[in-house]
Amino acid sequence: MAFALLNRLVAKSGRRDLVVRDLLESGKLFNDNPACLLYLVVEPVDDSDAIWVVDLWSTEEEHAAALQAPELRRYVSETVPHLEGPPDQIEVRVRGGKSPGVG
Amino acid sequence: MAFALLNRLVAKSGRRDLVVRDLLESGKLFNDNPACLLYLVVEPVDDSDAIWVVDLWSTEEEHAAALQAPELRRYVSETVPHLEGPPDQIEVRVRGGKSPGVG
Repeated sequence: MAFALLNRLVAKSGRRDLVVRDLLESGKLFNDNPACLLYLVVEPVDDSDAIWVVDLWSTEEEHAAALQAPELRRYVSETVPHLEGPPDQIEVRVRGGKSPGVG
Repeated sequence: MAFALLNRLVAKSGRRDLVVRDLLESGKLFNDNPACLLYLVVEPVDDSDAIWVVDLWSTEEEHAAALQAPELRRYVSETVPHLEGPPDQIEVRVRGGKSPGVG
């Protein structure tokens, strides 16, 4: 079944919008990649610095390959200084539901 | 934009599979509901009791209405005793990405 990650990022104070814009801009690289089933950027209503990204890929290998794109690496190096620390990545097994690539 | 929730549940020890089955079974009620854009049930690889459900709905009102279905309420009352406590619900604003109903 698909490979999924729940990523929690914490932006430095006042920089969340900037980080979200970077994440959305860099995520456009996945738009034409059929291996990317879901890339959803959300922000908690009651926390002004946190951001979550839900990633769903057809396989772990396709996800790893996508991360190697030079344009993406440029975005990552631009974004990291605006974060409080490295993202928390929760690797999860997909069990099912209603979603692209699932069921 | 769409209404989203990140739900974290913790099953009582040894009961995660049972809870996941309940969540998948009850989630079938959303399959024909176009207001349900995403209902994704996943379990962390490194935690044997936790479950996450990512919910994405066209509006908060449609989500609230779906929760009123009598069949769903039956599932909820069956599932709750297998949980360590009430689910943690992180209400989030959708910022964008690649996902049904987004972009």
